[in-house]
Amino acid sequence: MIFGDSKAPCAELVVIGDEVVSGLILDRNSQYLGEKIHELGIEVSRITTVGDSASIIANCVKLALERSDWVVLTGGLGATHDDITKSVLLKVFECGLKKDSKVAGMLKERFQARDREVPQSVQSQCEVPEKAEILYNEKGTAPGFKMKQGDSTLFSLPGVPLEMQYLFEKYVAPEMAAQNNKTFLHRLIKTTGLSESDLWTKIGPLQELQKKATIASLPSHLGVRIRISVLADSRQEGESRLDEVEGFLTQKLSSYIYGKDEDEIEEKVGALLQEKSLTLATAESCTGGLIGHLLTQVSGSSDYFKEGFVVYSNAAKINRLQVEPKLIEEFGAVSEPVAQAMAEGVCRVTGADIGVSVTGIAGPSGGSDLKPVGLTYIAVHDRSGTYCKKFIFTHDRIKNKERSAQAALNLVRLRLQGELEK
Amino acid sequence: MIFGDSKAPCAELVVIGDEVVSGLILDRNSQYLGEKIHELGIEVSRITTVGDSASIIANCVKLALERSDWVVLTGGLGATHDDITKSVLLKVFECGLKKDSKVAGMLKERFQARDREVPQSVQSQCEVPEKAEILYNEKGTAPGFKMKQGDSTLFSLPGVPLEMQYLFEKYVAPEMAAQNNKTFLHRLIKTTGLSESDLWTKIGPLQELQKKATIASLPSHLGVRIRISVLADSRQEGESRLDEVEGFLTQKLSSYIYGKDEDEIEEKVGALLQEKSLTLATAESCTGGLIGHLLTQVSGSSDYFKEGFVVYSNAAKINRLQVEPKLIEEFGAVSEPVAQAMAEGVCRVTGADIGVSVTGIAGPSGGSDLKPVGLTYIAVHDRSGTYCKKFIFTHDRIKNKERSAQAALNLVRLRLQGELEK
Repeated sequence: MIFGDSKAPCAELVVIGDEVVSGLILDRNSQYLGEKIHELGIEVSRITTVGDSASIIANCVKLALERSDWVVLTGGLGATHDDITKSVLLKVFECGLKKDSKVAGMLKERFQARDREVPQSVQSQCEVPEKAEILYNEKGTAPGFKMKQGDSTLFSLPGVPLEMQYLFEKYVAPEMAAQNNKTFLHRLIKTTGLSESDLWTKIGPLQELQKKATIASLPSHLGVRIRISVLADSRQEGESRLDEVEGFLTQKLSSYIYGKDEDEIEEKVGALLQEKSLTLATAESCTGGLIGHLLTQVSGSSDYFKEGFVVYSNAAKINRLQVEPKLIEEFGAVSEPVAQAMAEGVCRVTGADIGVSVTGIAGPSGGSDLKPVGLTYIAVHDRSGTYCKKFIFTHDRIKNKERSAQAALNLVRLRLQGELEK
Repeated sequence: MIFGDSKAPCAELVVIGDEVVSGLILDRNSQYLGEKIHELGIEVSRITTVGDSASIIANCVKLALERSDWVVLTGGLGATHDDITKSVLLKVFECGLKKDSKVAGMLKERFQARDREVPQSVQSQCEVPEKAEILYNEKGTAPGFKMKQGDSTLFSLPGVPLEMQYLFEKYVAPEMAAQNNKTFLHRLIKTTGLSESDLWTKIGPLQELQKKATIASLPSHLGVRIRISVLADSRQEGESRLDEVEGFLTQKLSSYIYGKDEDEIEEKVGALLQEKSLTLATAESCTGGLIGHLLTQVSGSSDYFKEGFVVYSNAAKINRLQVEPKLIEEFGAVSEPVAQAMAEGVCRVTGADIGVSVTGIAGPSGGSDLKPVGLTYIAVHDRSGTYCKKFIFTHDRIKNKERSAQAALNLVRLRLQGELEK
């Protein structure tokens, strides 16, 4: 229990589906619900995942209703023979079915829009448990249900993520928030270029700050994210505590931080380029086009991403980017002089304001004692000069490519922020 | 229950960790274990996910041992204060700790390799439950445990996916397989270019085949995968049933199938290029480098991937690929003539045997009535001519890019297989 407050209301999730217990699909709904409910200040105490067996589902639902203030079911609301959640609810709540005319109307409209009659198989969706309040589903054919037993409230939602999220946000979250007067807030601070242990050394003692928020680090090969969480009496109070912790971290980590929450480094680079009205060109060897791919994930990137070259062969480096053959002969394609010549060449050839280049050995083959797998040179060039940095990445081919692209975008970011020596 | 055989042995998973119930991390371990255990012919009847609370964990473990032949725990075996699985096992199995000298030796070696002493915090990993058999962990510091109660066997594994998978494959899977004389096998058949409903229309009635195997389709924006599953008395018998179904599907779907199981389309393209000793060059507009990135995910791609251009701007299309300016003026950058000129140009400029080009409107902006978001032209050129196909993709920007890259690689595959008209 992250907050260990035993008086907090608690919730349980029940996930229904053979396809989940047998590993045929990955259940992402529980993570979504776990996070959203936790944000509302309600502790999720248990998630039970079961197959399409009526007796097991009924048993789980009964126990969950006894133990918890809130029970959220996902799955088993479709119209096929193995969707049995509705019939289980009839047994648990001891009631029959009634016809809901609003659901019937919505289904009719939905199919009319496609010039079709409501198929026989879908008709049964109009029949709902007598004791249920209906959660009207604009995103699909299966309505959700809200049912009460004593002090506990159960929500039954479809398993299709889009429909589940729609109904959760429309019906479930507002009701949970109203019952609980606390607000849970969190903020992610995203860093790259520091290992987890170096990051904590730089941050130093947290002392008083730890009383104001929970601070956790989440490392990956692309960098360390820091998660700040607070449980506050109001949004205003919570935001102010988050701001205080973020201010402290920013002071300690300065330019290692590239963004927060949903920010991606390619968006930060794009925003900086737009702000300064500059254009960028890429010269990629081992990353094979990944940097261009990331840059163009951002809508509007055509404003600043001028052009990219995937110069996988020596000939391409020479013919496309005017890299002098003798540089490759003398130093090898994976070397500082070649990386620099690629970044300079891509600016000269395209007229872009900034050029970034990557040349490295992604692996698993191609390494030697002198030039091991993972050795990568990344260069950034602009009018003021060329900067080149050597890295040795220690992951597999695919992660080495991702790490290289991230490091390249980070160097462009630092150059644009004026924080990269020439 | 996919096979509904109630006599089959059953397993339960217990997932331990606050970070999972609160949605801070996505639990992928359960899917891995669910699938692997299901493959061994054992039904996973329930997955229970709980936070770091000793009483709740103990309760779950006791119930699971009563109900199931196999219980697999993941998580909570680290050496920090919130890792409490080991102390829960002591209570459930009513035993004390003993020191395991092999674990102690492994830890010492592990840290010596990094010139360090075993940290005080990690020392406790040498203390193991008296009643446990030890699962020696070569991939991390936390050993796993095997413990028996009556006819039930419990395995406790660390939550780190790499370590969990290592111990599962080394210790758990062999024991499960030995107990159960059935073999569960499955095969994925991967298709692209057909919608799910068109695919089933092409396949037609399955009749007798459905008695030999379970056949399910799994659609995504990149294509439809068909999963064939069999529960057989022997591997040989199972493989022969899988072969029969695969043969039937291959006959019905022929070139819509690009591979099976772990095959990716970029690997298939790479294998065909190597087999024919041909080289490929890419000319990407809206995909922004994604095709090059995918091609270079494959180790050894430098043998056949000659070079790539990310020609995001009109100027780049003209200057790099010799696209005639008047084509762009007359038809627009997103048009069949420009796609063809790009594919032809990239071959001329690079000397590659095959050129593939993509030009489209990924969205969300940039569309018009005449040229909607998602409109994409893909061309393939080789000595025998140029083929161009028009697509209208209806996803978001990121999925449109992925779909375009997949379609481009698929057209290259079909051309290499001689199945694309000029």
